[in-house]
Amino acid sequence: MTKIAYIEDMEQWRLEFSFSIPISIRFSETDMFGHVNNVSPFIYFEEARIEFLKSLGLFASTSNKKAIPIVGDLQCNYLKQMFFNQKIQLYVKVHYVGNSSIDLHYMAIDESEEIALTGRGRLVFVHPESGKPVPLEQSIKEKLTNV
Amino acid sequence: MTKIAYIEDMEQWRLEFSFSIPISIRFSETDMFGHVNNVSPFIYFEEARIEFLKSLGLFASTSNKKAIPIVGDLQCNYLKQMFFNQKIQLYVKVHYVGNSSIDLHYMAIDESEEIALTGRGRLVFVHPESGKPVPLEQSIKEKLTNV
Amino acid sequence: MTKIAYIEDMEQWRLEFSFSIPISIRFSETDMFGHVNNVSPFIYFEEARIEFLKSLGLFASTSNKKAIPIVGDLQCNYLKQMFFNQKIQLYVKVHYVGNSSIDLHYMAIDESEEIALTGRGRLVFVHPESGKPVPLEQSIKEKLTNV
Amino acid sequence: MTKIAYIEDMEQWRLEFSFSIPISIRFSETDMFGHVNNVSPFIYFEEARIEFLKSLGLFASTSNKKAIPIVGDLQCNYLKQMFFNQKIQLYVKVHYVGNSSIDLHYMAIDESEEIALTGRGRLVFVHPESGKPVPLEQSIKEKLTNV
Repeated sequence: MTKIAYIEDMEQWRLEFSFSIPISIRFSETDMFGHVNNVSPFIYFEEARIEFLKSLGLFASTSNKKAIPIVGDLQCNYLKQMFFNQKIQLYVKVHYVGNSSIDLHYMAIDESEEIALTGRGRLVFVHPESGKPVPLEQSIKEKLTNV
Repeated sequence: MTKIAYIEDMEQWRLEFSFSIPISIRFSETDMFGHVNNVSPFIYFEEARIEFLKSLGLFASTSNKKAIPIVGDLQCNYLKQMFFNQKIQLYVKVHYVGNSSIDLHYMAIDESEEIALTGRGRLVFVHPESGKPVPLEQSIKEKLTNV
Repeated sequence: MTKIAYIEDMEQWRLEFSFSIPISIRFSETDMFGHVNNVSPFIYFEEARIEFLKSLGLFASTSNKKAIPIVGDLQCNYLKQMFFNQKIQLYVKVHYVGNSSIDLHYMAIDESEEIALTGRGRLVFVHPESGKPVPLEQSIKEKLTNV
Repeated sequence: MTKIAYIEDMEQWRLEFSFSIPISIRFSETDMFGHVNNVSPFIYFEEARIEFLKSLGLFASTSNKKAIPIVGDLQCNYLKQMFFNQKIQLYVKVHYVGNSSIDLHYMAIDESEEIALTGRGRLVFVHPESGKPVPLEQSIKEKLTNV
């Protein structure tokens, strides 16, 4: 298998996830063979990211407008075809907590317990008006580090 | 600006593009402030990729079913907000030609001639039934190298 | 409330549904206030339609290629705003069985047990190659009539 | 052809359109045969509706927040398959101007100058906070009537 730059040891990496959500694949996201198109994983990542932040109480806290999270970059590796009607579980974890940004990693597991997708992306916390990066509060950093 | 792993020298990198298509941003791809959501760039990359392959005669040739291109990975860096009603030009170029895969790079330029998005992704050519990688014919390699 | 042409008596109409699926509203389907956009209900109708046909064994039977269902028309009435994070239940029923087509009705119920959407649409069964309407078999008509 | 309830005379109806926009069909909106899925027409209607309102100066005027247009209902009749790479022109016209709402009609014309889609839908102008219908100003009614 091709080496993925953001994963050192796939088995170890996989074990570090705990939070996940089930994904319902839309019929409109598939082609006539039922294959999921290559745009949909980024929709799934977004769903998982929001639920993950909510589970930490960080989605609500960002609506008080001191800082809002914006996506700095996103990437996805397609390891296995996903099909309509499959049950997919999408995992997300914090990989790195920076001064005003965090790196999240993503993993999709299919019904045969195999990795269908891996991914990662940076979220930057910025001021809602100025757009300037805002340092994360210590309490939030701790929450994110101890997930 | 954050260093982007797949770009050594941004100014040089930008100059290497020539093929591009105009992007029409859908209203449904934006939030109420008119910001483009973070999934849409991957739709734009797909549009550009298809038109690029067509321009080389490689989109048609893949329908004779000796080899079909599948997406191995994709990534996007969000450098500048894009808005509804903006005119965006999306560039694509071949970065690398492998044995049975190619790396494409992407760049979105906004109305003020600034880079709004950068991206890259690998296309792997596989046999339509077996799913195994198929070596690129020499003539195709040359086409891709001389773009 | 505005009269809806395909509904004679709303209370009676509502009681005639029994099949339903839960809908998960995607974040990308909403604007910044969390309102669902006006395109998404047609995606939800499609999900419900497929699950409904499957529940009757008619989704599989159409893949033997004697007849495939195509959408003749679709309509939706928006009665109540739907929001991100709401639990929506989408109902579907057969309204009418014709010679080679059926009329399906749709209803979305929100968390306060109110109707958020109503809809309807015709499915026409056609020959996969000729595209000509194909009469429904008697056994299928009975299945659809006795739902 | 099936009678469409909102069209009395198809030839006459077609002649009453003048405003139109070109539609670019996304690859991700099609299945592997290049057929456009049945959700996309509602995206196209939205594009055309926005451009039409803009052309009348009514899209900007609604952002001063006295009244915002919300979609009351939408419907679409699928007359002809549309394909990836086709050039489609989408027409929109005012069919009816009410006290606080308007009815818009839609028509998609394909490359062989045939009607691929027809549609209609009601826009209701409501107060941005109360959500109550707001009567259209006389000047706006005149603009809409004289299109």
